[in-house]
Amino acid sequence: MSHVVSAAASVAEVVRPTTVIESGRLSERLGAEITIVSETFQYTGSFKFRAAYGLASRVPNEKILTESSGNFGQALAYACKLLGKSCTVVMPSTSAQVKVDAVREFGGVVELTDVRVKSRAERLRELAAEFPDAYVASAFNSPLVIDGNSTLGVEICKLDRSFDAVIVPVGGGGLSSGIIKGIESCGRKVPVVGAEPLIANDAARSIKEGRIVSNEHEPQTIADGARVISIGEHNWEVLRHGLSTIVEVPEERIMEGLRLLFSFANLKSEPTGALSIGALLTEPERFKGKQVCCVVSGGNVNPEVYSGILLGVKG
Amino acid sequence: MSHVVSAAASVAEVVRPTTVIESGRLSERLGAEITIVSETFQYTGSFKFRAAYGLASRVPNEKILTESSGNFGQALAYACKLLGKSCTVVMPSTSAQVKVDAVREFGGVVELTDVRVKSRAERLRELAAEFPDAYVASAFNSPLVIDGNSTLGVEICKLDRSFDAVIVPVGGGGLSSGIIKGIESCGRKVPVVGAEPLIANDAARSIKEGRIVSNEHEPQTIADGARVISIGEHNWEVLRHGLSTIVEVPEERIMEGLRLLFSFANLKSEPTGALSIGALLTEPERFKGKQVCCVVSGGNVNPEVYSGILLGVKG
Repeated sequence: MSHVVSAAASVAEVVRPTTVIESGRLSERLGAEITIVSETFQYTGSFKFRAAYGLASRVPNEKILTESSGNFGQALAYACKLLGKSCTVVMPSTSAQVKVDAVREFGGVVELTDVRVKSRAERLRELAAEFPDAYVASAFNSPLVIDGNSTLGVEICKLDRSFDAVIVPVGGGGLSSGIIKGIESCGRKVPVVGAEPLIANDAARSIKEGRIVSNEHEPQTIADGARVISIGEHNWEVLRHGLSTIVEVPEERIMEGLRLLFSFANLKSEPTGALSIGALLTEPERFKGKQVCCVVSGGNVNPEVYSGILLGVKG
Repeated sequence: MSHVVSAAASVAEVVRPTTVIESGRLSERLGAEITIVSETFQYTGSFKFRAAYGLASRVPNEKILTESSGNFGQALAYACKLLGKSCTVVMPSTSAQVKVDAVREFGGVVELTDVRVKSRAERLRELAAEFPDAYVASAFNSPLVIDGNSTLGVEICKLDRSFDAVIVPVGGGGLSSGIIKGIESCGRKVPVVGAEPLIANDAARSIKEGRIVSNEHEPQTIADGARVISIGEHNWEVLRHGLSTIVEVPEERIMEGLRLLFSFANLKSEPTGALSIGALLTEPERFKGKQVCCVVSGGNVNPEVYSGILLGVKG
């Protein structure tokens, strides 16, 4: 799709339907009936397009500003291109060139900032002052983002399978809260389980303590989509009641999940996307013999990082 | 699907529909409007399941024998499992363990042979003598194989796009002749272009000379699915008239095709599957600005081989 779409077109009308993948060998290996719901072939390679289009199509502003080192920047750039809007993405000057290139190829303007001198948030505030008519978008803390992501929950309902659980990667919480809302909107009750990196477990700690708990620093998990300080407030309101539980996934299990997707499902996943399989590996007893929907949130990963994880295969 | 299916079920009823993937970035990079038709999520990870099920469901024999070091063995094992039949696959004793494991996990019996002592063909003849009631199956030289593969041609027609060309990897010629027959059966005229490794170009030489030309030895192309001595006679009858042309793809272009699928389409392909993109890279002028359907025939590749190709990225 390279034409400009009508701003009236809903997220559900514009997004690519998610890709459903089944693998008997993966199910046997994991001891559960696995259905993979993959957003790796979504526009811009991750579910973030749902969020970005949901947001960009609903705000009246012609210009949108955001900060992102990953998937949201690409997604917003492409959503704006489709809608005939413009967008500027603040990125760290240390960002991988492929990520910078992707935002630019999708039509976004990239503002690089040396984060040792000026934080991304600070640079974003400067730009907001410079462009007072622009909308400043959060990658995950917005009702519009939740609404956009809820379309994936609706698609999962429409698969018409009786899942015992839906496992969803948790970073800022935008995807998991969207899926909870989407499934609720269908009048279904399916337990939604979060899959969060153990070393970035602010959401798990938040659920335990009953309030938003923050990480002290951006955690350096291999699942770069989950490197957030804390979950968003809007998401928290959904997750505190709507999430069945959170599985805290050690780094090694995330990487094993990625390798299993490669070997038994022929699916290229980014590390964050493999969190759902990693959760199954971490708590196999919880899911044993169950019908489980594993959401693979995206597929954008550098060849070097990906190869490094693949070659970590033991035995 | 783990139950035994009715032998009356046709290939089209049993196979998974192919996966259609579009990538604006890949199209821009290649200068043509690309639609990827991917068999990487087919049962057993390649189109070979179409051929194998087509064959196994149509022969009356309860036991089927074949020789394969790759995808056909897995596919036949799984087809036989679904049909409640048994199957034995002769494989070189030097086969990668993952390939042997795959055949066994799909329910096949593996007969390893030390090819320095006894060729696969010889061991297969011995087994045929031992099991006179068994059917000896060729991976690519059979009308039943062509019929099974033709279902993919029909699916391509049903996409209802006006392709200027369909590019198909050529090894033994079973897939390309199946697709030609399938498209013909829909009453459509779409040029089908073969993509063959330059160092295994027996099909291209055969078309030029008007007769089947053989390679002297099994060519050691990275596209292991195209390591054949010659195309099958049944396929030749279809290809000699039905094929629009063959593009001979250098090894480096095959690998570049695999990397582009990884980086711009998030698609894990085996080297043979990347031949169609490799053909576009080899003769870009032929396809410039055209609507091109690229068939990615399968996704089964070892992590070591795959990583090696990914890390060959320059720049």
